[in-house]
Amino acid sequence: MDGEFSQLRELVRTFVDERDWDQFHTPKNLSAALSVEAAELLEHFQWLQIGDAAELGERKLAEVKHEMADVLVYLVRLADKLNVDLVSAVEEKMVLNRAKYPADKVRGDARKYYEYKDAGE
Amino acid sequence: MDGEFSQLRELVRTFVDERDWDQFHTPKNLSAALSVEAAELLEHFQWLQIGDAAELGERKLAEVKHEMADVLVYLVRLADKLNVDLVSAVEEKMVLNRAKYPADKVRGDARKYYEYKDAGE
Amino acid sequence: MDGEFSQLRELVRTFVDERDWDQFHTPKNLSAALSVEAAELLEHFQWLQIGDAAELGERKLAEVKHEMADVLVYLVRLADKLNVDLVSAVEEKMVLNRAKYPADKVRGDARKYYEYKDAGE
Amino acid sequence: MDGEFSQLRELVRTFVDERDWDQFHTPKNLSAALSVEAAELLEHFQWLQIGDAAELGERKLAEVKHEMADVLVYLVRLADKLNVDLVSAVEEKMVLNRAKYPADKVRGDARKYYEYKDAGE
Repeated sequence: MDGEFSQLRELVRTFVDERDWDQFHTPKNLSAALSVEAAELLEHFQWLQIGDAAELGERKLAEVKHEMADVLVYLVRLADKLNVDLVSAVEEKMVLNRAKYPADKVRGDARKYYEYKDAGE
Repeated sequence: MDGEFSQLRELVRTFVDERDWDQFHTPKNLSAALSVEAAELLEHFQWLQIGDAAELGERKLAEVKHEMADVLVYLVRLADKLNVDLVSAVEEKMVLNRAKYPADKVRGDARKYYEYKDAGE
Repeated sequence: MDGEFSQLRELVRTFVDERDWDQFHTPKNLSAALSVEAAELLEHFQWLQIGDAAELGERKLAEVKHEMADVLVYLVRLADKLNVDLVSAVEEKMVLNRAKYPADKVRGDARKYYEYKDAGE
Repeated sequence: MDGEFSQLRELVRTFVDERDWDQFHTPKNLSAALSVEAAELLEHFQWLQIGDAAELGERKLAEVKHEMADVLVYLVRLADKLNVDLVSAVEEKMVLNRAKYPADKVRGDARKYYEYKDAGE
C-alpha cells in the first residue's frame, strides 16, 4: 500500500484533483499524452550518436530526466484509470517475454520474435 | 533499496544480460523503443470514444496492460542506463508543474502553460 | 519529373545542402524525427473532442498546418534517402489494403484486419 | 487539380467511402493514427545503426516502404478533413525554417533553433 507506485499514484491524483483535470483524463487521451511525452523524450536523442550522459551533457540530461518523469506520470495516471497494477503487469509480461525470446536462441540478436521464428524455421 | 523500481530494474537487467542485449541498449535506441511501445499502446485506443475498461473489453484490456508493461520496461531500462532515479524525477517535476500550473489559475482548463500565459496576460 | 513530390524533394534537398545537414540524415534519424513531428501534431489534438477546424480555432489550425508540413518534409527526405517513390508506395499499399479489408466485410467497422479475421472465423 | 496530392486524396477518399469509415476520421483520431504509423516505421530502424537500404535488406525495405505509405495516407486524409493544401503548407514552412535556421549560422550543426539562439547570444 505504501509502495513507490502507490505514492506516485497519490501524488498525481492530488495534482489532478486540485486542477479539476480528471474530466480530460479518459484512457484514450492519456495514451495520446503518453505518446507525446515519449516523443519529447526521443527528440533529445534524435540527432545524437548514442545519447549517453557524456554526449547529452548536464543541461540536456536534466531535461531528459524531466521528460522521463512526464512519461511516468501519464503511465501511472493511465494505470490508475484502468485499475492496472504496473508491477504485476511487468512481472506477467516478463514471463511471456522469457517464453518468446529463449535466452539460448536469441543471445546477442535483437530481432523481434516473429523474425526470430521466421529465420528459425 | 528494495523498492518497486529497484526490483523492476533488477528484473530487466537479468533478462537483458541473459540475452546479451545490453549492446543494443544505447539511450538513443531505448528512447526510440519507448516511443514505439507508447504508440502500440495508443493504437488500441485510436478509434475508440474514451477507451475505458467497458469499451475496451476484457481481451483488449489485457493487451493494453501488456503494452503498458512494455513502456515501463523501457523506461526503467533507460533510467538504469542514465542513472536516473525515477521517483525523485517525478517528485522534482511535480514541483515544477505546481509552479507552472497554479491550481487557482488553471482549474478545469487543460490548455498548456504557454497558452495559459498567453491568455492570462 | 516535375510532379509535386519531385518539387518538394528538391526544395528539401536544397535546404539541407545549404546547411550541410545531410550528415545527420541517416534513415534511422529521419524516422525518429518523423515520429517526433507526428507527436507534435498529435499534441494539438490530445485534449480536444474531435479537433475539427471550428474546435481548433484559427491560430491552432495554422500551427497544425505547420506540423503537418514538418511531417511531410521528413517523409519526403526519408523517401529521397531510400529511393522510395511515395506515390507508387501508396498505390501499392492501397491494393494490399483492398485485399485485407474487403468493403463488403468491414463496412462501418474500424477494427483492424486481424481482429476482423478473428471475429470472422 | 490533377496533381499527385489530389490523386492520392481521391484514392483515399474512395477507399474510405466504400467502407463507410469517414465516421471514425475525426482530425483527432487521424492524428493519433498518423503517430501510430510513424512509430511502426521507426520500429524497423530502432536497433539498426543507420538503417540504409543495405542494412535494412530487401524484405525490410519493402515493409518500410509500406509503412511510409501508411503515414502518407493518414497525412493526406487529415489534410482533406482540415482543408489543408500540403504543398503550400511545406512551402510556407520552409520560408519560416529559412528565417529560423540561417544557412551561414547553422552550417553542419543540427541543434534546434532555440539552442542555436541560446548558444549564439
